[in-house]
Amino acid sequence: MRPVGERSIFVSGPMGAGKSAVALALAARLGRRHVDLDARIVATSGRSIERIFADGGEPAFRALEARLAEEVLGEESAVVALGGGAVTQTPLRRRLLAEGTLVTLEARTDVLLARVGGGEGRPLLQPDPRRAMESLRARRAAVYAECHGRVDTSDLALGEVVERVASLASEVRVPVPLGEDSYVVEVGEGYRHRLEERVAGYGGVILVADPNTERYRDEPAFEACRVTLDEGEAHKTIDAVARIWDAALAYGVDRRAMVVAVGGGVVGDLTGFAAASLLRGVAFGQVPTTVLSMVDSSVGGKTGFNRSAGKNLVGAFHQPKFVLCDPVVLDTLAPAERIAGLAEVAKAAWLEGEEAVARLERDAEALVRGDRAATITAIESAVRTKARVVALDERESGVRMLLNLGHTVGHGLEAAAGYGALRHGEAVSLGMVAAMRVAMARGRASASAAERMEALLHALGLPVDLDARLGAEVWPYVDADKKRQGDAVRFIVPGEPGQTRVETLPVDEVRRAVER
Amino acid sequence: MRPVGERSIFVSGPMGAGKSAVALALAARLGRRHVDLDARIVATSGRSIERIFADGGEPAFRALEARLAEEVLGEESAVVALGGGAVTQTPLRRRLLAEGTLVTLEARTDVLLARVGGGEGRPLLQPDPRRAMESLRARRAAVYAECHGRVDTSDLALGEVVERVASLASEVRVPVPLGEDSYVVEVGEGYRHRLEERVAGYGGVILVADPNTERYRDEPAFEACRVTLDEGEAHKTIDAVARIWDAALAYGVDRRAMVVAVGGGVVGDLTGFAAASLLRGVAFGQVPTTVLSMVDSSVGGKTGFNRSAGKNLVGAFHQPKFVLCDPVVLDTLAPAERIAGLAEVAKAAWLEGEEAVARLERDAEALVRGDRAATITAIESAVRTKARVVALDERESGVRMLLNLGHTVGHGLEAAAGYGALRHGEAVSLGMVAAMRVAMARGRASASAAERMEALLHALGLPVDLDARLGAEVWPYVDADKKRQGDAVRFIVPGEPGQTRVETLPVDEVRRAVER
Repeated sequence: MRPVGERSIFVSGPMGAGKSAVALALAARLGRRHVDLDARIVATSGRSIERIFADGGEPAFRALEARLAEEVLGEESAVVALGGGAVTQTPLRRRLLAEGTLVTLEARTDVLLARVGGGEGRPLLQPDPRRAMESLRARRAAVYAECHGRVDTSDLALGEVVERVASLASEVRVPVPLGEDSYVVEVGEGYRHRLEERVAGYGGVILVADPNTERYRDEPAFEACRVTLDEGEAHKTIDAVARIWDAALAYGVDRRAMVVAVGGGVVGDLTGFAAASLLRGVAFGQVPTTVLSMVDSSVGGKTGFNRSAGKNLVGAFHQPKFVLCDPVVLDTLAPAERIAGLAEVAKAAWLEGEEAVARLERDAEALVRGDRAATITAIESAVRTKARVVALDERESGVRMLLNLGHTVGHGLEAAAGYGALRHGEAVSLGMVAAMRVAMARGRASASAAERMEALLHALGLPVDLDARLGAEVWPYVDADKKRQGDAVRFIVPGEPGQTRVETLPVDEVRRAVER
Repeated sequence: MRPVGERSIFVSGPMGAGKSAVALALAARLGRRHVDLDARIVATSGRSIERIFADGGEPAFRALEARLAEEVLGEESAVVALGGGAVTQTPLRRRLLAEGTLVTLEARTDVLLARVGGGEGRPLLQPDPRRAMESLRARRAAVYAECHGRVDTSDLALGEVVERVASLASEVRVPVPLGEDSYVVEVGEGYRHRLEERVAGYGGVILVADPNTERYRDEPAFEACRVTLDEGEAHKTIDAVARIWDAALAYGVDRRAMVVAVGGGVVGDLTGFAAASLLRGVAFGQVPTTVLSMVDSSVGGKTGFNRSAGKNLVGAFHQPKFVLCDPVVLDTLAPAERIAGLAEVAKAAWLEGEEAVARLERDAEALVRGDRAATITAIESAVRTKARVVALDERESGVRMLLNLGHTVGHGLEAAAGYGALRHGEAVSLGMVAAMRVAMARGRASASAAERMEALLHALGLPVDLDARLGAEVWPYVDADKKRQGDAVRFIVPGEPGQTRVETLPVDEVRRAVER
């Protein structure tokens, strides 16, 4: 993963949005190489684009386009103008999102049409240019929404567009690509102050916060219905959700409302569910204020609350419109609280692979200290991993289960200790140690991988003394795990970094391996 | 609308599913005309299909295909084999669903491939037939799901397929076309007994019923978690939803569960919301047991419950997998209860148009008596209207608001009377009278249209004595209506049958018109 600012910038969007002009001017402004992908296709193949289409049809053209775009990713950082249809290729689009900065330029239909001369000489727009343009935009709405940022160029001068794209490309922004439900996690100092800008345009704002939020609430006050909820698993109940519903209804919301969570994971999950169900669904935004909520509950749209039968047994999938992660607010957390959140960072790195684990090993000490730059990098990395997995499996029917690494036994430990006695992150750390024991017993992981994981968790200040914490009371909770099927559990079995898999195992086998 | 059994049957599905053979054999079995649409295209145009594509591309072919398929709809009833891509045209598909019986044949990929000779000579399947077939099916899954019924032909003899299609075509089935969330409302005597068959294959059944259900629960008992809820608006609360969650969790559900509502609208809405939120969403089925729930709450996926601030203010959109409407259960209702449900039938007919209103005028007396055949026809007609509107606007952002005809003032009357004092259907009947007054004041409806609507409602045994029931206490509720925007309401203004529209009106104007 190249650092932000060293990644190539890909400029996408419909015909007439200004891709070519913006890419050229932006390259000059940043002193970077400029690549026009269509020109490169012509130069490389020695054929005109019309010729390539005539010879092999669209599939031949797209294959060439994908190959050359990926080639650019491996080269020195550039500013690249894409063809309007390039991002319709999902594997290519996802790769550009992961390794480059992908910006969508857009404009109103009348502006687009005027810029392409009313459609003259554009076969794709015949016979009815306006209708063709609108239909094209509707068909591509879901792919253009998957990007690091969008700029509407309708009423901006070229220089202004260039500044906005340059600014987007200089920020830590992680896209969560989910078609028209896509959104961006923005990570940076002071970003909590962007809230006012992000809620502009919605019809009424409901701001739900935990009491800690008072400590750093230095944003300019704006008109909103404010609800304060308690943090902590014990408060993660339908009664807390009902407080949000009723406050919002008393405030007088309609369907144009925006409900914002400012707080940790509990407040985020409760608020997200309230937004999902209020008037059968209104918009939702998040300003997570703990490491755990920045890297975990802010991505993927899982919302909900606990019942006496267990955690998170009721809820909804409801994606936020924006997520603002401001590391400054982490300074107000108790150190143990901040450190517990690093367990999900370690989990994400282990799922991701060698590079992410090595970076985390390098940065562990700085992270424990609360170093700002290391924290931003760690949050970005963990969010990227989670976003990639969620994009593959929004409804958790397959690969998304990998994110439960450390959670099966972890939830058992947390529940057996009584919620609140053991922090979620601490339980996940111990659960990862347990999962590694299962992996070793099944021959999926080496002793050195297990030692490395423990060393990493320990370096991050997380507990690894599993034997001291493990009692027989843990297993009934594992047994009741919601991933249970018959008398087996879907267990997440780690290996070397990047080699984690899901296996269906009898609870007894898990227990024997963990208890050794 | 032709009666069931006299509508043309359109056989759709991917290549190799057996469309041609089944259509031919079914036509013989039913003694009907047989039409092969592709053959008709060739005969009509005097060109081969390859030639049509070469001359005008796919658009030219599709235009011809749509025109000839619509021609068939106007002719004597037939059995029609469609080309595999015909139903990808949304306007055509929706029209076949509305006026014909559209059946999708399907089969496993290996069976389809074997039947098309491994893809030899099928350009669409080259170069990798298996992959091409799977990709084709994935792309078309949402359109093939919109049908009156599906038959998997993989392991059936031709005769068996023909019998199943003939049987589907002889039943009252109303498709609710929502892409992959499509489902069918089945209306017929004894259909409640199909429940056991419909829940087969799910992992655990939660059966939620109201106490009345005991009166006709003569279905064979099957293994299920049973929850009994009280009917009535007063019980439409989050506490009732929580009873379903907790019973299901204690029973030990997982995500393969099916939650079924057997009861009226309140039980259906509560159960639907419980299903939408349990484990973040499990499958849902409905056996509505009142006229109101058969024609209204069973279609469209709106679920939820009341808060003290108003009705249905919290909920979710969650479509059922099946809806079984059995008119036999209506015999157990108090006559006033059954008759109140006819208000939604009258509303749907007024939205639909002249033919539906005339049919209802003709059948009013039989409906009041509880005549079985008239009841089935009335339910089918109302469900068709609602399904058509919902398909255009699943999330109620536009045309779906038309379904609120009579509900703005109706809700006010219901709330002002105290929930339970006035039945919902009675309130809607009075609300329709009120809406007609607004229409007349705005010059949208003639006095004769208003008289006709009142006469119809009266013939159905519904109250129309609005002046006697209207008090000043109604207006604050209208004012708080959730469709409110600024100091205006989105009011549904009727006209002649089929001429209803949505207008944004100041509450004062509505009040003046209604109070006269």
